[in-house]
Amino acid sequence: MPEAKSPNRYTLRDVARRAGVSLGTASKALNKSGTLRSETRDKVLLAANELGFRPNDLAQALHRGQSFTVGLISNDSFGRFTMPIMEGLETVLHEAGIALFMCNATDDPEREKRHIDQLLGKRVDGLVFTGRRADRRPAPGLALGNLPVLYVFSQSDEPDAACLLPDDEGGARLATEHLLALGRTRIAHVTGPEDFEAVRLRRRGYEASLSQVDPTLILHGPWSEAWGREAATRLLALPNRPDAIFAGNDQIARGIVETLRDKAIAVPDDIAVIGFDNWSVMAEASRPQISSIDMNLKSLGEEAGHRLIRMIRGESQGGTSRLPCTLVPRASTTTTP
Amino acid sequence: MPEAKSPNRYTLRDVARRAGVSLGTASKALNKSGTLRSETRDKVLLAANELGFRPNDLAQALHRGQSFTVGLISNDSFGRFTMPIMEGLETVLHEAGIALFMCNATDDPEREKRHIDQLLGKRVDGLVFTGRRADRRPAPGLALGNLPVLYVFSQSDEPDAACLLPDDEGGARLATEHLLALGRTRIAHVTGPEDFEAVRLRRRGYEASLSQVDPTLILHGPWSEAWGREAATRLLALPNRPDAIFAGNDQIARGIVETLRDKAIAVPDDIAVIGFDNWSVMAEASRPQISSIDMNLKSLGEEAGHRLIRMIRGESQGGTSRLPCTLVPRASTTTTP
Repeated sequence: MPEAKSPNRYTLRDVARRAGVSLGTASKALNKSGTLRSETRDKVLLAANELGFRPNDLAQALHRGQSFTVGLISNDSFGRFTMPIMEGLETVLHEAGIALFMCNATDDPEREKRHIDQLLGKRVDGLVFTGRRADRRPAPGLALGNLPVLYVFSQSDEPDAACLLPDDEGGARLATEHLLALGRTRIAHVTGPEDFEAVRLRRRGYEASLSQVDPTLILHGPWSEAWGREAATRLLALPNRPDAIFAGNDQIARGIVETLRDKAIAVPDDIAVIGFDNWSVMAEASRPQISSIDMNLKSLGEEAGHRLIRMIRGESQGGTSRLPCTLVPRASTTTTP
Repeated sequence: MPEAKSPNRYTLRDVARRAGVSLGTASKALNKSGTLRSETRDKVLLAANELGFRPNDLAQALHRGQSFTVGLISNDSFGRFTMPIMEGLETVLHEAGIALFMCNATDDPEREKRHIDQLLGKRVDGLVFTGRRADRRPAPGLALGNLPVLYVFSQSDEPDAACLLPDDEGGARLATEHLLALGRTRIAHVTGPEDFEAVRLRRRGYEASLSQVDPTLILHGPWSEAWGREAATRLLALPNRPDAIFAGNDQIARGIVETLRDKAIAVPDDIAVIGFDNWSVMAEASRPQISSIDMNLKSLGEEAGHRLIRMIRGESQGGTSRLPCTLVPRASTTTTP
């Protein structure tokens, strides 16, 4: 036995030496090219197998001009929204034999530029940008030519950019229609800061579902439980208090539910509550558990993988697509029979 | 101008053509080898710059036998514990010019094997394993030879494996001593399942800090708010109820604090509560906010990056190291003046 090397350190030369053939013969046998006697070919394959020899992807990448790598650039410090997207993306790419480089750009354009530069040096076959919010972002500070680029849970300034987003407006319609179906007539909307596109889209979906909109029932504030508690207190002080509340995220929803509980107001009987994000650790710990809208971020990541693979194959995939959200009913809107 | 290519698609030949020199001259100029007139060298550098030409990392990797890539294999589906570790690791590696491949193995040995196989084909310079819990895991199902391998927030069966972990026992001592310093004498411990090594180590740190251990004050259960609520109810029913509770994580702590609030028991005056993990979104939304122990996972990731770089350079770095935790006091243990 030769001394133990890492399996990926064996070269074609090691295989040839072990099989007792020339380098050219070993290459022919492994690349299934040329004509060789089958026993010679078998000897080489056996030697390669014994050594755990792997064809060198780097050499193949140089030869083919495809590296079977893709870079993901997140400005989310690998946060709550990036993780499920990554999980879906990585699964689909892995099945296609493509490995994923992870880069954290933390909203720093210089850092992002250095990351892109490094990825271009690695000859990545494509780039995916993702973020902590789905708003439009400036184009990357480096010319990417015709390299396939996809924005997921993120959008670009560039007019023809390929963008994949959750359908926030549709999700908000699902939530509001669910409350309407329970027979609720005064539905409030307690949500996040107006400068988030997602906030504006969710509000639009909420308003579109109602025959009449009462602006006193719409409250904007920070994405926090504390805001949910404050907003609930304000809504309860109204002369004509709501009989349902659609919260812009699950943290706000939880703050609302806790305040209603403190004041012995029955959820959902007196006031039904639904959130957004379906952050299960938050929604399921609440008393009662909180109904929510799931953005299906893992599916979004999977779809991103499929779309990027098509782009790498040369298919044009520009434009923005929005993937549907799903209603996840729990005890805060549905009474168990 | 030549037609727009991706910056990473330009070859040395393109640079030579644009500079009006031979391929050999362009190569000498860019590799700073051989002797060239300075104006020739400048002409080549200008052309390379104009095209955005990048030296091909793949070719360099083949030549040098180092790919400047590292693989991270997580069984956590990129979860809450992996994220900060990744963030720290990626920052340090990026500064050293090393890019990070992210692989999600989801506790599936076959999937992990395929990932490792793919990474070996990419000629990674090292591997990092991380997980959703720090317990010992079986060795990877593929021979890795002398490839540098590091376990972070994870441990291996192999005797000399390099492992980097938080000091759970020390963190528990910090928590317990903090409660003792408040003058508390009956400190309970409500924690997670005993089959987690972290649970056993935290309990050991708690017991080591007390002059006398009362086993009726130690309760094991699931990692959830619901368990925190149940355990708090049980502790309040004891004839000699505790005056402080050290919870095994922040979710349990939050369930405890909510139950005490429901029963109008003052936190921290009647019963002080401290958690573990310093999961700020959970700890800060609680009323009162929850003191906690931070495992400094981002620093753990950074230290992993430094250690892996030393291993790649050929320094031996075997054995297990545990990094200190930090106390983060909040209102559940400290009354604001």
